[in-house]
Amino acid sequence: MDALKDLAEALGPRFTTSESARAQNARNEAHFPDAMPDAVVWPETTEDVALTVRTCAAAGIPITPLGVGSSLEGQHLAVKGGVSLDFSRMNKVRAVNAEDLNAVVQPGVTRTQLNDELRATGLFFPIDPGADASLGGMAATRASGTMAVRYGTMRENILALEAVMADGTVIRTGTQARKSSSGYDLTHLLIGSEGTLGIITELTVKLQGQPEATAAATCRFDSVEDAVNCVILTIQCGLPMARIELVDEMMVHGFNEMAEAGLPEKPHLFLEFQGTPTGVTEQAAMFREIAEDFGVQDWKEATATEDRTALWKLRHGAHYATAAIRPGPQFRTLATDVCVPISKLAEAVTTAQDMARKMGVICTIVGHVGDGNFHCGVRFDPDDPNEVQTTQDFAGKLAELALTLGGTVTGEHGIGLGKQKYMSAEHGPALAYMRAVKAAFDPQGILNPGKLLPPGN
Amino acid sequence: MDALKDLAEALGPRFTTSESARAQNARNEAHFPDAMPDAVVWPETTEDVALTVRTCAAAGIPITPLGVGSSLEGQHLAVKGGVSLDFSRMNKVRAVNAEDLNAVVQPGVTRTQLNDELRATGLFFPIDPGADASLGGMAATRASGTMAVRYGTMRENILALEAVMADGTVIRTGTQARKSSSGYDLTHLLIGSEGTLGIITELTVKLQGQPEATAAATCRFDSVEDAVNCVILTIQCGLPMARIELVDEMMVHGFNEMAEAGLPEKPHLFLEFQGTPTGVTEQAAMFREIAEDFGVQDWKEATATEDRTALWKLRHGAHYATAAIRPGPQFRTLATDVCVPISKLAEAVTTAQDMARKMGVICTIVGHVGDGNFHCGVRFDPDDPNEVQTTQDFAGKLAELALTLGGTVTGEHGIGLGKQKYMSAEHGPALAYMRAVKAAFDPQGILNPGKLLPPGN
Repeated sequence: MDALKDLAEALGPRFTTSESARAQNARNEAHFPDAMPDAVVWPETTEDVALTVRTCAAAGIPITPLGVGSSLEGQHLAVKGGVSLDFSRMNKVRAVNAEDLNAVVQPGVTRTQLNDELRATGLFFPIDPGADASLGGMAATRASGTMAVRYGTMRENILALEAVMADGTVIRTGTQARKSSSGYDLTHLLIGSEGTLGIITELTVKLQGQPEATAAATCRFDSVEDAVNCVILTIQCGLPMARIELVDEMMVHGFNEMAEAGLPEKPHLFLEFQGTPTGVTEQAAMFREIAEDFGVQDWKEATATEDRTALWKLRHGAHYATAAIRPGPQFRTLATDVCVPISKLAEAVTTAQDMARKMGVICTIVGHVGDGNFHCGVRFDPDDPNEVQTTQDFAGKLAELALTLGGTVTGEHGIGLGKQKYMSAEHGPALAYMRAVKAAFDPQGILNPGKLLPPGN
Repeated sequence: MDALKDLAEALGPRFTTSESARAQNARNEAHFPDAMPDAVVWPETTEDVALTVRTCAAAGIPITPLGVGSSLEGQHLAVKGGVSLDFSRMNKVRAVNAEDLNAVVQPGVTRTQLNDELRATGLFFPIDPGADASLGGMAATRASGTMAVRYGTMRENILALEAVMADGTVIRTGTQARKSSSGYDLTHLLIGSEGTLGIITELTVKLQGQPEATAAATCRFDSVEDAVNCVILTIQCGLPMARIELVDEMMVHGFNEMAEAGLPEKPHLFLEFQGTPTGVTEQAAMFREIAEDFGVQDWKEATATEDRTALWKLRHGAHYATAAIRPGPQFRTLATDVCVPISKLAEAVTTAQDMARKMGVICTIVGHVGDGNFHCGVRFDPDDPNEVQTTQDFAGKLAELALTLGGTVTGEHGIGLGKQKYMSAEHGPALAYMRAVKAAFDPQGILNPGKLLPPGN
C-alpha cells in the first residue's frame, strides 16, 4: 500500500511493518483470536496522530488505537488490518494543576504512572481497573474499578479531551472549569466510544485529595447472598464506602492458588473506608453494625499502607487468579461484566452461580458490588467447541438476565468485539442514533472498524 | 396550516391557538423580546409528544419544548414560531425506587415537587437552580445550582432518559444500573442539548440520602477577594462542602431591599455542611480555621430547619433581588454565567467588578463559587441603546476573560439565544462536530430551531 510507504517515510522510526511488533499488538488477554495489523505506528505527538489519520483516510486504511492492550473485549485488536496506533510513547504527564485538582496527560500514561507522579502533591487519581491500563484506553472504554462507588467512573472524572477525528481534524472538548452548559457534550460522546468516533490524544482528568485517614478490611460470610445483601443495605444507608468488593468462594480459591493468600474459601467482602480519622472509625463501626445482621465473620482490618497495598494488589490480580483455578496455557478467560440496579444484585449474583453450576461452567465471581457490577471469569478451552458454546450460552443468559433486571450488559469493559450481539437488545431504537453519529463522524468507517456497533443497519 | 388542524383534531383540549395561551409561553424572565408560537400543545403522554413531532415533521413546523419557562437564555422561546410544547401536564413522578436511590419522572415535574414527594423516603434530589424549574428543562440545559459543588450537576445525576426524536421515534438511553460502558453515551448527548436533538419525555434521576446532620452558616468578609480566596483554599483542602455561595455587597443590598434581610452590605459567603453530627462539627471548625486567615467576621450558624430554609430561599431569590437594586418594570436583567478553574476565580470575580465599575454597569454578583461559577446580574434599560450596548459589551468581555482563563462562557444556564456568539471562540473546530450531530439527528431543523448552534456552517 502506497499510504503505508508514505507513513514510513514521514514517521521514520515511529513506523514499522516488522512481524514481531505487529504480532505483539495482535494479542489480547481475553479470549479473542489474534488479529495482525499491517503496520504499527508509535505516535509521539498529536501531529503524528493527525498525520497518520490523514494519510490513512486518503487511502481508506483502518486505524485501531492501542494503549497497553489490556482491554477485555478486544477493543485494541486490528481485526480489519491497517494501522495499529500504539500510544506507548505518548506517555507524558503534561501538567499537574494541583490548585485546580486536575492533571493534563497524554493517552499512553498509565494509572499507576500518574499516581506515582502525583505522590508529592497529596492528590491521587482514583479510577483503577484491574490492569495498569492507559488513561486513553480507560477513557475510550469508559472504565472504572474498585473506587467508582465513591468517585465515579471515567465518565465522571474527565474534564476535557483533545481528539483527532476521522479526517485528521484536531478538536478540543470541554474546558478546565469543573462544569459547563456550553453546547453538545462531545467529551462524553467520545468517552466510551472505543476509538470509533475519534482518537483521544490528550485528557484533562480530575484528581482527588488523599484522604486524611484510610482503613481497609476483609470479612467473610456464609453465603454470597449474605454478602450481597450486606452490600445492598450499606449502599442504601448512604455509607460513603471508598471500596466494597465481592469475592466469591471460587475467587478466593484463585487468590490462594495464585498468591498463597491463605483465606478461608468462603465469600468475602474487601472494604476500604476513607475520611477524617473520626469519620473512618465511624464508617467502619456503622458497616460492622450492618454486617452483623448478615452473620459477618473473620473481620480483619488493614490500616498500615503496605497491608492495604497488598490487599488491593491481590484484588487487582483477579484476572490472573482466575487463570489459577484452571491453569494451563490452552485455556482462556471470558469475563462477563453485567451491572444491575443494586436492589437486583443478590438475585443476579445467585442466579449466575446457579446457572454456572447447572451448566457446568467453571468460573470465579468478583465484583464492584457497590455499583451493582460483577464479573464471572469463565475458564474454558477454546479448542473444545462444546465448551466454547457453553461459555457463550452462559454469557448470553447472564446478559439477558441483566437486561431483564433493568441493567446493562457491560458496566466497565465496553462492547468491543464480544458484546455487539447484545447492542440491539439493550438499546432498541436508540441504536440507530448511535449509527447516525458514527456515519456523521466517520463516514468511511476507518476508525477502529468492527468494534462497538454490530454489523448491519 | 393543515398540520395544525390535524393536531387540533388529534389532541382536542391538549391543543390551542388561543392568543392568551400563546402569549403566556411567549414571555421570558431574562432580557429577550417576546416570541409568539403559532400554537401551544400540552402533551399528557409520550405518545402525545410523538404524534405532535410526527405531524410537525411532515409539515416542517418548528417545535419548541417548554418546562416552566424559567430559562435565562431564552431556550423555551418559539423564535421561529410553530408549536410550543408545554410540559406542564406531564408532571407525574412515575416511580420512586428508594432501594436503588433513583426516581423516574416526567419532564414537567419541578425540583420542589419531586422533593415534596420524596419527603417520607429519607431521600432528596440535590440539584437546585434558582427557579423552581422543571426537571426536563434542567436536563435540557445541563442545569446545576448551589449543591453542585457536592453532588454534581444534571450531567452527573441522570441515569436514563426517554426522548422523542425529530421523526417521532421514541428512544430510551441508559439503564437503571449506576454505570454502563455500553455504546455511545446518548444520555449525555441529550443532556444540555436544549431540545435541539430530541425532546426528553422521561428521566431517571439519582437521589441522595438525607444527611444525618446539616448546618448552614453565613459570614462576611472585607472584600470579595478575601471571600473568594477563602473559597479557593477550602476547595483545595478537599473540605466536602454541601454549599458555598458568594454574595457580593450589591447582592446583599438586593436581598435587603427585597426581603429586609438586614445583612451588613459587605461580601458574604452562604455555607452548608452535611454529614454525621460529628462530621458536620468537624467540617465547620475546619472551614472557620481557613476563613480566619481571610479575616472572616459575623459568623452566624443556622441549624434549625426553618432558619436554613429561609437562608436558601433568600439565596434562590437572587434573580428577583437583583431586580430590587434597580426596580421598575421597564428594566430587564442579563445574567452572565461564566465558570473558570478555581485557581482563576479571584482574578475573574475582581476583574468583573472592576469592569462593571469602569463601564458604569449596575450589577449584583452571586455565585456557586465552589465550582468556579458566578453570575453578574446586570440591570439595564432595554429601550436605551447605549445601555443595551454597554451591557452586551460587559457580557462579551467577561465571556472572553473566562475563555482566556481556561473556562467556559456558561456554567449552568446554557447557550440558548444569548450565547451563540461565543460558541466558535469556545469550541473552535469542535463546533463542526456539534453541527454534524444536529444534521444527523434533525436534518429538517425542526427541533427548537434558532437555539444553541450559531447560524452558518
